[in-house]
Amino acid sequence: DDVVDHSDEEMWVREPLRDRRLVVKTARPFNAEIPPKLQIQHLDTPNELFYVRQHMPVPELDPATHRVKVSVGGHDPRTFSLQQLDQFPRVTLRAALMCAGNRRSEMNKVKPVKGLDWAGGAISNATWTGVRLRDVLLQCGVDPTDTKGKHVILQGADIDATGVNFSTSIPLATALSEERTVLLVTHMNGAPLPPDHGAPLRAVVPGAPAVRSVKWLESITVSELESPSHWHQKDYRAFNPSKTWETADFSTAPPVYSLPVTSAICDPGEGEQVKVKNGHVEVKGYAYSGGGAKIMRVDISADRGATWVEAQHLISDDAPPNTHYGWTLWTARVPVGKGQSEMELWAKATDSNFNTQPEKFDDIWNIRGILSNAYHKIKIKLQH
Amino acid sequence: DDVVDHSDEEMWVREPLRDRRLVVKTARPFNAEIPPKLQIQHLDTPNELFYVRQHMPVPELDPATHRVKVSVGGHDPRTFSLQQLDQFPRVTLRAALMCAGNRRSEMNKVKPVKGLDWAGGAISNATWTGVRLRDVLLQCGVDPTDTKGKHVILQGADIDATGVNFSTSIPLATALSEERTVLLVTHMNGAPLPPDHGAPLRAVVPGAPAVRSVKWLESITVSELESPSHWHQKDYRAFNPSKTWETADFSTAPPVYSLPVTSAICDPGEGEQVKVKNGHVEVKGYAYSGGGAKIMRVDISADRGATWVEAQHLISDDAPPNTHYGWTLWTARVPVGKGQSEMELWAKATDSNFNTQPEKFDDIWNIRGILSNAYHKIKIKLQH
Ligand SMILES: [Mo]
Ligand SMILES: [Mo]
Repeated sequence: DDVVDHSDEEMWVREPLRDRRLVVKTARPFNAEIPPKLQIQHLDTPNELFYVRQHMPVPELDPATHRVKVSVGGHDPRTFSLQQLDQFPRVTLRAALMCAGNRRSEMNKVKPVKGLDWAGGAISNATWTGVRLRDVLLQCGVDPTDTKGKHVILQGADIDATGVNFSTSIPLATALSEERTVLLVTHMNGAPLPPDHGAPLRAVVPGAPAVRSVKWLESITVSELESPSHWHQKDYRAFNPSKTWETADFSTAPPVYSLPVTSAICDPGEGEQVKVKNGHVEVKGYAYSGGGAKIMRVDISADRGATWVEAQHLISDDAPPNTHYGWTLWTARVPVGKGQSEMELWAKATDSNFNTQPEKFDDIWNIRGILSNAYHKIKIKLQH
Repeated sequence: DDVVDHSDEEMWVREPLRDRRLVVKTARPFNAEIPPKLQIQHLDTPNELFYVRQHMPVPELDPATHRVKVSVGGHDPRTFSLQQLDQFPRVTLRAALMCAGNRRSEMNKVKPVKGLDWAGGAISNATWTGVRLRDVLLQCGVDPTDTKGKHVILQGADIDATGVNFSTSIPLATALSEERTVLLVTHMNGAPLPPDHGAPLRAVVPGAPAVRSVKWLESITVSELESPSHWHQKDYRAFNPSKTWETADFSTAPPVYSLPVTSAICDPGEGEQVKVKNGHVEVKGYAYSGGGAKIMRVDISADRGATWVEAQHLISDDAPPNTHYGWTLWTARVPVGKGQSEMELWAKATDSNFNTQPEKFDDIWNIRGILSNAYHKIKIKLQH
């Protein structure tokens, strides 16, 4: 668990104001979901509704004086102000960010897991504007032909109660990939980054768990080793369902740098009464797949998998498969039987690698409750 | 179905000699699997044991006179002999090729599908040596900044009974991707391509269904449209389980350009008697995922998913995730209960996007029986 001193009121008095519509999971540190019905209102989530996942208090940084230090072995470290970063070509990219623990609450019902009990609201979508980490690293002397086994450690200005800064790392090959487009961003949906989203500078690693998109970025270090931080070493690693806290070996398990295909029904919500129109109910939600995969199809079953209806409307941007980092919003029309009073809905998405979601959480269960991407299943009541 | 004239004996007299160990599914055209126990003997499958999937008779081409024609809009078509292709940098890449219909026989048991009844032997692994399609296309004048909606049509010298050449296409963005490394190859595991594998020149599209890796390659055309061939338009497209031959619309379904994570147990085989050693049985197989994803873990259950044992030995090459195109061979030691006489084994793989296989075939069933990647399940007998 994160080491946060909740007793020191002084640490928390400068927290930003938050939109009252966010669903707060923990107040200190601030962790909050976007409500499902607001998720599907916009392809790009308004900044004030973007889900928030903090490990520590939000640091206050001055854009005018903020610097990011870039250290590449064999070269003098360099520092860049925001203005100095502007020398590099500016890029805008649409990418969803999703917590590796999104939809953990559903896995938690199978057998308790450790972590924030997120429903499906730990994902939002935005356009991000900034410069390529690749361009910065190349100017700082990185050898793009020597990436094997190397990493880029990204450190934020957020500090835990023991004085340790948040940090994690990504493979150098990912940082330098022209197709991945890892960014150092200053703007979110065209506006300067809000404090909750890393003002004035954060990394965006598209297609990766959001934890790798380090906020309040203050240092970038090319290294032979992954980040030594406990967030990197002791979390965001995957195990099979039989591994326990006693038998799981974090030192040999690979870090999670991408996310599997997932989907969720956002409207109607669990248990809701839904009006039947022309013999159908309308069902809406999101779907997403990591690593640049694009959502190709969303299928809905109202009879526990016996038959499937394909969602007719898929809204996403036109980035091609392999470099498609945004989420997809979908709408399906599901037929209703005469006089049917209840319905169980299952949602499953298929991505451009034709991977699909597993049917149930049992076989992907893991101690930390991450990668919780089985079918989303809800029950509703029908009103004729 | 392929249009092949079986009555014209003359068409078939020049077919190559084949290794007697291959498991023949159809003799004309020749389609044959590698037996499971031979799959796991070598990381790189010996050429004579590489599975064979033909649509038509094997064309006889002379390497000395063979030419490939490259047509790029707005430029005069160019032709290249094999010697002229040697001007480009030579690249060797390890990649598995897998038929989109591999493991169809297991889906076929749920409900009949149309297609060759492949078991798990329609996948093999090799190193491929040739030149980058990217380099050839750039020399022929392709604009790498103008890929949107464009395709590269790859045509082979194999001809059906109506006189139509085999052809399919891939997105131009894939053809030009530096990370995908689409190749025009002349050598397989260091030896000249055998006739069954496209001598003297074939495409290799790593991470894609093998159908895109066109053999006996004779023309390459950059186009605003996908290949018009029936192999491209009427096959290798995916539908949900409720689509029938009457309701499936091939014109709106996306072509399959990548493959989902899969695995198979190769040793022991279904129904075999296995000797228990030190309270365990040894289980071996392969795992693979398309689109450059790397296999991160293989888990085996001997109790229908209640518990999972992680395979300890994963053998593959050291290409990083996202550009990992080879298969992975694995070995697991599965504990056996005292006096246990039978065992049901389930295998599931997890890739570097942390996608996993679906548990059963029902919900991925499709009319053509492709993308058949649910858990592999076998029953064995135990000998103490
Ligand atoms: Mo997260
Ligand atoms: Mo195939």
